[in-house]
Amino acid sequence: MRIYDFKGFPNPARVRIALEEKALTDHVEFVSVDVPGGEHKTPAFAARNPGAAVPVLELEDGTCIAECTAITEYLDHLSGEPTLTGTTAKDRAVIHMMQRRAEAGLLDAVAGYFHHATPGLGPHIETYQNKEWGEKSKERALDGMRYLDGVLAKQAYLAGDHFTMADITAFAGLIFADFAKIDIPADLSNLTSWRSCVAARPSVKQA
Amino acid sequence: MRIYDFKGFPNPARVRIALEEKALTDHVEFVSVDVPGGEHKTPAFAARNPGAAVPVLELEDGTCIAECTAITEYLDHLSGEPTLTGTTAKDRAVIHMMQRRAEAGLLDAVAGYFHHATPGLGPHIETYQNKEWGEKSKERALDGMRYLDGVLAKQAYLAGDHFTMADITAFAGLIFADFAKIDIPADLSNLTSWRSCVAARPSVKQA
Repeated sequence: MRIYDFKGFPNPARVRIALEEKALTDHVEFVSVDVPGGEHKTPAFAARNPGAAVPVLELEDGTCIAECTAITEYLDHLSGEPTLTGTTAKDRAVIHMMQRRAEAGLLDAVAGYFHHATPGLGPHIETYQNKEWGEKSKERALDGMRYLDGVLAKQAYLAGDHFTMADITAFAGLIFADFAKIDIPADLSNLTSWRSCVAARPSVKQA
Repeated sequence: MRIYDFKGFPNPARVRIALEEKALTDHVEFVSVDVPGGEHKTPAFAARNPGAAVPVLELEDGTCIAECTAITEYLDHLSGEPTLTGTTAKDRAVIHMMQRRAEAGLLDAVAGYFHHATPGLGPHIETYQNKEWGEKSKERALDGMRYLDGVLAKQAYLAGDHFTMADITAFAGLIFADFAKIDIPADLSNLTSWRSCVAARPSVKQA
């Protein structure tokens, strides 16, 4: 398997953490895509992912899988019991629901702020910006943090008692928030504690 | 099981089609939420889905599942073999990737146009609009249609030879496009043919 990504960026981190959790990192060849230089926007890269984003997982047969949820589903079903996406119908449903809330309400919202209301990756890449939308997205990101904090007031992880794909997505959202300089509001102590706990996982320290 | 939704709307259609495909419709009690009247924005509904959107699946134990992908995962793992979300690692990955592309590139893009560049559901519900973002979203929706048309030039369904969750999402996106008055460009014959084929499925006619 090959992973096309750019180390340190939020979405690549999601897959790198999943690989570590599944003990699959050694089975992967990483290929660095020069995202700051716009390589992900080239026709050559579009053949692997028309969505023009990293990471992309390339299988031995040449099939390219984009979208972090899809890649995580693949890795989680490749070896051992699925641990990140659940096994029962109910667990799968709760994990996918919380994953989506972390993605839409935090990670994508931070991305909206970063790409629209800040210089983002620079004028050669950010060819369309809508500053008002970016500022609105920052509000959504802060609302998302507040929602997640409320969930974490009642349970250890976003989908219940166990670390799952939903936690990975939210953790990557906070990596992106740091990068975009959106601070976690000081009163969101559950979110801050959860973040410290996740950051201490071997998979996250390695990734 | 209960489904809180509003019949005829695009996201409710996703779950109703999935229920029909899985022959589970008779096991569900439908509760109509007055979305045009803003009932999905009330605190009472927020207790079921803080995301303020339909549909929501309520399980017998009171657990509420929102987000169509999560509900579809539940239904697909509840009875019989998963047929809408795949069984092998690779199938699951391709289906989730195409589902996400149909969602972000078509359905959510149409929603962006509808809620921002048209009167949407009316001024009492559309309390924030960004017309320029709405128009940009329409461009994204048309790009999304073009991308899906290209995929369907090579295969019968969005994730390969079989009807899956990805097709349901895209079909609902086109229901929404009709509603928002975004026409499928005349040259996208693969998308149009696929749509006719999906519309003729018993599950879709019943839903």
